[in-house]
Amino acid sequence: MVMNEFELIEQLIRGFGDLTKADFIATGPGDDAAVVNLPDDQQLVVSTDTLVPDVHFPAEARGDLVGFRSVAINVSDLAAMGATPLGMTVAMTIDSLASDWIQQFAHGIAVAAREFNVKILGGNLARGPLNITVTIQGSVPNGKALLRSQAQIGDDIWLTGTLGATRAFLDERTNPQSSIETLLSRQDTCAVARYFLPHPRVEFASKIRDVVHGAIDVSDGLASELAHLTKASQCGASISLNGLPVWRGLNTMDVVGPDDSYEVLFTANEGDRPQILELALLTYTPVVIIGEVVADQNVSYTLDGESVIPQTGFDHFA
Amino acid sequence: MVMNEFELIEQLIRGFGDLTKADFIATGPGDDAAVVNLPDDQQLVVSTDTLVPDVHFPAEARGDLVGFRSVAINVSDLAAMGATPLGMTVAMTIDSLASDWIQQFAHGIAVAAREFNVKILGGNLARGPLNITVTIQGSVPNGKALLRSQAQIGDDIWLTGTLGATRAFLDERTNPQSSIETLLSRQDTCAVARYFLPHPRVEFASKIRDVVHGAIDVSDGLASELAHLTKASQCGASISLNGLPVWRGLNTMDVVGPDDSYEVLFTANEGDRPQILELALLTYTPVVIIGEVVADQNVSYTLDGESVIPQTGFDHFA
Repeated sequence: MVMNEFELIEQLIRGFGDLTKADFIATGPGDDAAVVNLPDDQQLVVSTDTLVPDVHFPAEARGDLVGFRSVAINVSDLAAMGATPLGMTVAMTIDSLASDWIQQFAHGIAVAAREFNVKILGGNLARGPLNITVTIQGSVPNGKALLRSQAQIGDDIWLTGTLGATRAFLDERTNPQSSIETLLSRQDTCAVARYFLPHPRVEFASKIRDVVHGAIDVSDGLASELAHLTKASQCGASISLNGLPVWRGLNTMDVVGPDDSYEVLFTANEGDRPQILELALLTYTPVVIIGEVVADQNVSYTLDGESVIPQTGFDHFA
Repeated sequence: MVMNEFELIEQLIRGFGDLTKADFIATGPGDDAAVVNLPDDQQLVVSTDTLVPDVHFPAEARGDLVGFRSVAINVSDLAAMGATPLGMTVAMTIDSLASDWIQQFAHGIAVAAREFNVKILGGNLARGPLNITVTIQGSVPNGKALLRSQAQIGDDIWLTGTLGATRAFLDERTNPQSSIETLLSRQDTCAVARYFLPHPRVEFASKIRDVVHGAIDVSDGLASELAHLTKASQCGASISLNGLPVWRGLNTMDVVGPDDSYEVLFTANEGDRPQILELALLTYTPVVIIGEVVADQNVSYTLDGESVIPQTGFDHFA
């Protein structure tokens, strides 16, 4: 049976079940807008990200994997702010409703929503070339958001996780036919799994809120994001790439440029190292110090004692 | 000069100026996410709408007109909830940055943001077929949102404004080359102006919050939206089309079906007529009573004493 737009939307909302319900949701999907209660003394944190086939995912990718990825990259922006996800809207244009792809996609959205504890507030469905825009809302206690503009001279520069899984995946160019459930258990070892199912550091980032100065999502590549952070903080950075955790099989210089790893780059006082390491252990988050914030408004990189210049970030229109 | 993505984003944010600043905005565009303070005892209202060329606007339309329309149709969803706009994110995919169209589009966004007093919280820019998704955040006092599920049997059914401007515009199929400023003064008389520059009833809707029972945005056409409202409220409606305000040159039956007029349909107790009419006068809002909420879960229409059956709403995929 081919459903019309309204029937499909109703079926999807029904399928999402408790993912559309929470104490903070006064009115969920199905009205002109969703109505949300915010807890006292919290600030709302809002971000949006669009995914287009063959730019943000291979056009032939399974719907469930694309669905998960669409949510995860938005969650990643909240993680980089130290915010806790609350809800999201999912706007999608697609050529036809008569495809299993939408059902798979909705399943991926649901798996990610459960994984990151983010509720589904609503969405939009219209005809057009495939395009997915997720807009996410989260919260932080008043004044506690992690900003890219707050790095301080002398700070350690920290990075979570490993860079290069995207590059490894794009090099392989495999088209995974595995289900989301199969891939979810392989995020640490399988580039395909890591590419489609990034796992933003939400819990860790919220726990380090009190000690972090500057923070940014590493979604366009380390060099690009570090340039954004130092520019916003009116400072520079001195980076040693020797300790950089690199996806197996890749070279360091391969992963410093364009690479969407959805890890968090953050800066903090040297005196807070013990606390950060303890919170990293507690939340199973690999972290490493890759350099220092400096006064000179320039970012310098060294590898094996030599000065190197990485390729800068991904420009969609380059 | 052709700018890259980041330069263009910076230039756009700079151009938006005070439209990115407000007491409630702790962090605006430029970080991983925006941070928003909500006033006490308010609920957050969230909605999203996508626009695709040749579905939601003619592909050849000027960027400023499309920009205004993108904001207005989102504001309309808030109006139908009785909410006051706070901020929005604008996500856009486009084939090339090297076009005046984006600058025009940003101007249209800015004019609408000023018109509806909604601030710009952030956005996303990526390469792809033209697609615009605006996600809007507003607020209502706790428990005061106007819901489509709250119509009560015996209620008057009210409608703001006039239906049919979209139909009139699509019949004309003119491609306006007038600037947004020229068209803004012609919304009441010119179908093109009304199509591109809808003027949601934000102020009126927020003022009638205490007396309205059920409410819905008439963005898919009267018959379709009335079906949604009665379904959500588990009731029916008896509608007399004789008093329906119709765009000049059109017939009543032309405008009851698919038509995106961005007016508000709402229901209220008969005893509240004087108050509603007074608030309508105060806010220069044309209103009319078009029928009554009935217990029988069916919507019946009469015109000149005869029973009529309108075409139902717009299905993007039909």
